Amino acid sequence: MNLTVVKVGGNIIDNPVALNDFLREFQSIAGAKILVHGGGKVATDVAQGLGIEAIMLDGRRVTDEPMLRVVTMVYAGMINKNIVAKLQYLGCNALGLTGADGTLVVSKKRPTHPVDYGYVGDPISVNVDTAKALLDNGLVPIIAPLTYGDGEILNTNADTMAQTIATGLAAHFDVDLVFKFEKRGVLRDINDGNSVMERITPRIFEELKAAGIVDKGMLPKLTNALAAVESGVRNVFIGETVICNSEL
Amino acid sequence: MNLTVVKVGGNIIDNPVALNDFLREFQSIAGAKILVHGGGKVATDVAQGLGIEAIMLDGRRVTDEPMLRVVTMVYAGMINKNIVAKLQYLGCNALGLTGADGTLVVSKKRPTHPVDYGYVGDPISVNVDTAKALLDNGLVPIIAPLTYGDGEILNTNADTMAQTIATGLAAHFDVDLVFKFEKRGVLRDINDGNSVMERITPRIFEELKAAGIVDKGMLPKLTNALAAVESGVRNVFIGETVICNSEL
Repeated sequence: MNLTVVKVGGNIIDNPVALNDFLREFQSIAGAKILVHGGGKVATDVAQGLGIEAIMLDGRRVTDEPMLRVVTMVYAGMINKNIVAKLQYLGCNALGLTGADGTLVVSKKRPTHPVDYGYVGDPISVNVDTAKALLDNGLVPIIAPLTYGDGEILNTNADTMAQTIATGLAAHFDVDLVFKFEKRGVLRDINDGNSVMERITPRIFEELKAAGIVDKGMLPKLTNALAAVESGVRNVFIGETVICNSEL
Repeated sequence: MNLTVVKVGGNIIDNPVALNDFLREFQSIAGAKILVHGGGKVATDVAQGLGIEAIMLDGRRVTDEPMLRVVTMVYAGMINKNIVAKLQYLGCNALGLTGADGTLVVSKKRPTHPVDYGYVGDPISVNVDTAKALLDNGLVPIIAPLTYGDGEILNTNADTMAQTIATGLAAHFDVDLVFKFEKRGVLRDINDGNSVMERITPRIFEELKAAGIVDKGMLPKLTNALAAVESGVRNVFIGETVICNSEL
């Protein structure tokens, strides 16, 4: 059975028009599907409103206890349920979850040394039983970027979560993993928005790296995408660019 | 198959020690089970923190748009996921939802005349397919007091929601409905906390009403409980008092 795992980024979440367009597109995907959504910047606004200070270390947000409460409210409550209600209205049988629900995505709390980022988890596995119970019954899981580690909710990167879900379910479904974001895809020339690459295979990736063409911001995304493909995911889409194993 | 639908009130939600005790008790219930939780007073605190004014009409809260955002964050995000993580830690395969998820509980938005309470819904049905998909797979739904009406999330009374779920599933399961609250049960004498009644049947209820014994606050609860029993729910427990059809 086909399964499409889609990750949608915070920039789209934050823009009501872009979000509605995206949700109509998501609704039209045939077969089993899962949506993993990012957090957007609403959490920062709510934290500011509540007088909770955002703590940054090396340019990354620290999730202390007050901030964990805020992201749990905003990601699992406001954003997730807003998406669920909109999708239900479009006729998509959405059901909103975090990684804690049915222990769908279990993570390991990040070590506190050298830097303590607080309640942050790196996903390690997906619960196949929970995922299959939902998908086999035609439910469409909508997943907030929060995971479960040893009794606690942990703040988690949505890209990594989508990748963990896709690779973890690749033995049970024919999985496509789609990263939907504000750019059109992987560019051959970062200064030319029209130079979107159609297809990247392991061989092409090596050539791009050797030629120094790959944009630094795109390098980890491509490395992860190729790892997913190596782990059994059929295709990874970064915007319009497909990353796959087949050297057609 | 047995199914126990438990409703836990805001007073227990607001008290961490009482909540932990309750969750251990809930975890020990054998067979299929569902938890419906109230909101507690955290929503008021968060609304105050965000400078959102609570509007009351005739002693009842009005759910305007900013307040709907707050209760969605607090009920579906903070409270629901806190309960889910705690139950998972206790070994209970909890999965947190609102009535919008899988359209589990659909409601009708309350008429705006004579009083406009805003985004408030009165539950009309439970989605048996969604409930069975979860219960048949050993998942334990934990339900926040929010329902789905015509594309919108609606603030909803948790007692009514639990009752709608219990009666709606009575054709598919042997359902017990349990109202867990801070009092011990239905009192024969409201001035005597030890006068807890063991059993109330329709005949006993008529006798109590005729004798003017039933406390005014308890009357609607008992009327609803007897309606549930009439609709096929096996037993309703209000604290330690059981309401049932059998005149043993």
